[in-house]
Amino acid sequence: MRTRPSFERFDEEWARKAMERSPSPKGIDGYLGIRLESFEPGRLVASFPVTDEIVTMIGNIHGGCVTALVDHVLGVVMYPVMPPKSWAATTEFKVNLVAPVSSGVVRAEAEIVSMSARLAVVRVEVTNTFTKPDATEETTRLVALGQGTCTIVAPKG
Amino acid sequence: MRTRPSFERFDEEWARKAMERSPSPKGIDGYLGIRLESFEPGRLVASFPVTDEIVTMIGNIHGGCVTALVDHVLGVVMYPVMPPKSWAATTEFKVNLVAPVSSGVVRAEAEIVSMSARLAVVRVEVTNTFTKPDATEETTRLVALGQGTCTIVAPKG
Amino acid sequence: MRTRPSFERFDEEWARKAMERSPSPKGIDGYLGIRLESFEPGRLVASFPVTDEIVTMIGNIHGGCVTALVDHVLGVVMYPVMPPKSWAATTEFKVNLVAPVSSGVVRAEAEIVSMSARLAVVRVEVTNTFTKPDATEETTRLVALGQGTCTIVAPKG
Amino acid sequence: MRTRPSFERFDEEWARKAMERSPSPKGIDGYLGIRLESFEPGRLVASFPVTDEIVTMIGNIHGGCVTALVDHVLGVVMYPVMPPKSWAATTEFKVNLVAPVSSGVVRAEAEIVSMSARLAVVRVEVTNTFTKPDATEETTRLVALGQGTCTIVAPKG
Repeated sequence: MRTRPSFERFDEEWARKAMERSPSPKGIDGYLGIRLESFEPGRLVASFPVTDEIVTMIGNIHGGCVTALVDHVLGVVMYPVMPPKSWAATTEFKVNLVAPVSSGVVRAEAEIVSMSARLAVVRVEVTNTFTKPDATEETTRLVALGQGTCTIVAPKG
Repeated sequence: MRTRPSFERFDEEWARKAMERSPSPKGIDGYLGIRLESFEPGRLVASFPVTDEIVTMIGNIHGGCVTALVDHVLGVVMYPVMPPKSWAATTEFKVNLVAPVSSGVVRAEAEIVSMSARLAVVRVEVTNTFTKPDATEETTRLVALGQGTCTIVAPKG
Repeated sequence: MRTRPSFERFDEEWARKAMERSPSPKGIDGYLGIRLESFEPGRLVASFPVTDEIVTMIGNIHGGCVTALVDHVLGVVMYPVMPPKSWAATTEFKVNLVAPVSSGVVRAEAEIVSMSARLAVVRVEVTNTFTKPDATEETTRLVALGQGTCTIVAPKG
Repeated sequence: MRTRPSFERFDEEWARKAMERSPSPKGIDGYLGIRLESFEPGRLVASFPVTDEIVTMIGNIHGGCVTALVDHVLGVVMYPVMPPKSWAATTEFKVNLVAPVSSGVVRAEAEIVSMSARLAVVRVEVTNTFTKPDATEETTRLVALGQGTCTIVAPKG
């Protein structure tokens, strides 16, 4: 039996602007080219393209690219559903890296699975969509699974 | 996009016997009265009743009861889908405890979300079904979320 | 460079009573016979004996016994150093299980490695001290490593 | 009682070359400027400088910079102590982020705390050394704590 939180608010305006402003012109999310693709209450999909810049000599991308994406969506998914002007601090997360990535697009889907006034638990699934050599159609496979805790910090005074 | 493993085998006989033999007459799973309720390929539901024995002075059960259930289902869900005579070692897991438990039934659902020849990632959701004071109907709420790694150990020789 | 928190208070009286009252007459900590052995500011050592009751047919103890001990020390280590009447909620933890246990004593050492007004991070190392067949001296080996987050809940009103 | 693995080999040549070649000219570790500072058997210290490029509008660095460093040292610490030509795959890790970073240097120390033929557990502590406004001396504080699992993959053939 799946039990999921219901959300009292969903700030579509915030979500729309955040999508428009992505990818960021600087910072690690800008370096990776993380683009916010879609928001729903308690959900966020975001992705980055696998460029030559991030592929290592071994032919795969560094795990740190995937974990930076996990960290990014863990926090950003919180904003449209928190009280206005609150701040989401990523307290901790855990990630399993289950397959390497060498081309295509890396996409994360974050879902808030538990939320109280102070804490939320977010789960993240990361997939890689790519075209295998000699193939004509794209393949999508799971590359990472995350679970983390966000602390909701109320605005001051 | 959800991507889940497909399973080459599902040993219904093993699953049926494991359910019949639960709860165990001894051990921590026997102490808690963990009952295996249902198996599907890559899924297991198991539960224990909240007895006076495990409720502390504060009125809640010890978090260790919930984490022992998480540990239990993480390993047991693997057996019907592994090659015969393999052994599933719980390498590590992470658990978020999101609500206290004081009565009713604690139920875990484990799902294998990634599986290779050597490693599997399992996610677990734990709920508590109970009747609130003065209520007539049962409530089910989320109490814990886990994610862990099992190592599949091949039989010797 | 190791940086560790300093603690403004250390309630020796609380620690002394908690040690005297352990093992608990009931609950999962009582079932395992968890004994609080020693407290220092930000540190706790606790153990349980490996009895026939908790050894499974395979000859090892259930991982849930070890994770229940981890959960126990994660919370209890907090009490002597928190403001009086606060409550420590184990928000989440992660544990690696690195070796099986079949006899002797299981001992955990918890250390508070970070602490703010609201959150603490605790690390736990679990060892097994036992005598190998045909050996005359005891061996101690690492069996589990944990890291978790406690939320410090202030007393009401 | 601390129990730590002993290491049968320590490839100083590998370590020396890896230090010389850091920071990488490309990739996420190159973007951050991660420099390998020192190796000992089972230990690695590495750092990156906090540049304007990685500081966000809020004035702090993205958590993904810290978690990318954790991911990096988790794998790299393994190479000098593994059998030659083995490969270390970061299977999973967990990280607690305990303080923000806005200037100075971010430094991680990785320690292999458990190691078998196939799996290792690595702990990481991340500190930030910086000069507070109006201060004359540097301060070092803890910013993150990690624990993860590496799978040791033997060379083919």
